[in-house]
Amino acid sequence: MSADLPAEFALIARHFRPLAGPGALNLQDDAAVLAPPPGRELVLTCDAMVAGVHFLPDDPPDLIGRKLLRVNLSDLAAKGATPIGYLMTVSAPRDTPDTWYAGFAAGLQQDQRQYGVTLLGGDTTSTPGPISLSLTILGHVAPGQAVHRMGAQPGDGIFVTGTIGDGALGLAVAQGRLSDPTGFLLSRYRLPQPRIGLAIAGIASAGMDISDGLVQDLGHICRASGLLAEIEAARVPLSEPARVAGPDWLPTCLTGGDDYELLLAIPPGREDGIPVTRIGTFQSGPADVIVRGPDGKPMTLARGGWSHF
Amino acid sequence: MSADLPAEFALIARHFRPLAGPGALNLQDDAAVLAPPPGRELVLTCDAMVAGVHFLPDDPPDLIGRKLLRVNLSDLAAKGATPIGYLMTVSAPRDTPDTWYAGFAAGLQQDQRQYGVTLLGGDTTSTPGPISLSLTILGHVAPGQAVHRMGAQPGDGIFVTGTIGDGALGLAVAQGRLSDPTGFLLSRYRLPQPRIGLAIAGIASAGMDISDGLVQDLGHICRASGLLAEIEAARVPLSEPARVAGPDWLPTCLTGGDDYELLLAIPPGREDGIPVTRIGTFQSGPADVIVRGPDGKPMTLARGGWSHF
Repeated sequence: MSADLPAEFALIARHFRPLAGPGALNLQDDAAVLAPPPGRELVLTCDAMVAGVHFLPDDPPDLIGRKLLRVNLSDLAAKGATPIGYLMTVSAPRDTPDTWYAGFAAGLQQDQRQYGVTLLGGDTTSTPGPISLSLTILGHVAPGQAVHRMGAQPGDGIFVTGTIGDGALGLAVAQGRLSDPTGFLLSRYRLPQPRIGLAIAGIASAGMDISDGLVQDLGHICRASGLLAEIEAARVPLSEPARVAGPDWLPTCLTGGDDYELLLAIPPGREDGIPVTRIGTFQSGPADVIVRGPDGKPMTLARGGWSHF
Repeated sequence: MSADLPAEFALIARHFRPLAGPGALNLQDDAAVLAPPPGRELVLTCDAMVAGVHFLPDDPPDLIGRKLLRVNLSDLAAKGATPIGYLMTVSAPRDTPDTWYAGFAAGLQQDQRQYGVTLLGGDTTSTPGPISLSLTILGHVAPGQAVHRMGAQPGDGIFVTGTIGDGALGLAVAQGRLSDPTGFLLSRYRLPQPRIGLAIAGIASAGMDISDGLVQDLGHICRASGLLAEIEAARVPLSEPARVAGPDWLPTCLTGGDDYELLLAIPPGREDGIPVTRIGTFQSGPADVIVRGPDGKPMTLARGGWSHF
């Protein structure tokens, strides 16, 4: 599988070997070997990113690398897991310049240090199509304490981390539909902040990271847990730039996605010490999401009835 | 990352959920959670396959799925590891027919049963380019007993499993350069037979699977172990169809690749009970491979001096 790019071995040595950590066998072997942390469960997830779908071909390569790693870290964070390391496949056109690989690897290196992970293994191939990336990340959690979409109970509070909607507004900025004098919204869209290290394992009864929009993702927890969710739009935490954008952008914030904040069900009184904002309550009832507007009435949100399942 | 294909959730439910095993949380969560086998080390490896590079767009989709799984199983086999399960990303054009996914999943299902693995998680996205696949496989091995490329000792025998060269000859058949009355060579090219279950952990001092050609891959072990390898072409096991092809094809068999047999260094007297064939001996000396031909003289093999590093 590996005689595919003539300069493949040199490319791996130059750009990816510096990212390798314990167990990676210096990326010179066929597989990584590592001892799992004793008495812990493993958490594994993967995401693919394709040029022209998940990023633009001329996006800065360091940001592409960092986003690839961070969307996977965000899934670990949502499980309450501690990251260990990752494996990655890179399929790129033969004429991809060396500077692209250098920038991509530099972005990964920067975030590896920030989040305490290393590269365990991978595969590099050519492709006649756009750059196609895939990353599998490995983490660990105390037995039985991983947070799932299922498990929320009636009466549990509905909580979120950080601020909601910045990513969707940042996309509007990138598309020229919204101004962003400070650059905050665009940076939030371009570079997710995975909530690694939040002590939710064993505390949150359910949870996930918000990638497809607060309302749609809350619907996933409702369906998995068999509950009705009721939230108040006025309690959803917004950043200062999102407030400045005005109430017309509120539906975008609630449904737009690309937040990579955590959405959590936490039993009453268990949220102490966790930096989260309460936005509503899970109740017995049909799996559905009710969003009460500032006037107390249920809001009607566009985008194909994402609040109705 | 997942609102990308309109029918993505239905597609996953229809084709990939039946492949999910313990820990996969029915592919409805953001990550898999599983307890690693107590007291064992983890072995992890991944490979990418791209249409037009690693397979042809009109290859039977079940064979594509099985080959994707088997090339990764072969890497686990080379480590002496027992497979657990795998994660997979599938990036496919929007107009990929449902029958393609059905065939691809059927091939995976067939091999899952054969090799005792299940799907742990994945990601499905669209792509404006060719079908791009990535698979990460997870296995386990007794602590310290994983087989590496490094570790061969002077005096260790050089052994291979199965027969060598069938894959390269099968490619020649596919290209119309060789006849294959029984279809054996073509089947060996299309569907590797990973040597899972061979009891080499703790016995082989070094090893790898042969994917880039016997001579080149033996060179990898020589460099990693700092040894000279000397093999006799007459001792390299050939299948009956490869013998029938005749001596002109011997260099192709020795350098062609796509074997997915194991290449092993085994200390004297330790090979009992392991179905392998001895083809030579590791010696002290510069990292290089000497192939003695039927006349006892070193053979000169084409293909860019793959026997010289």
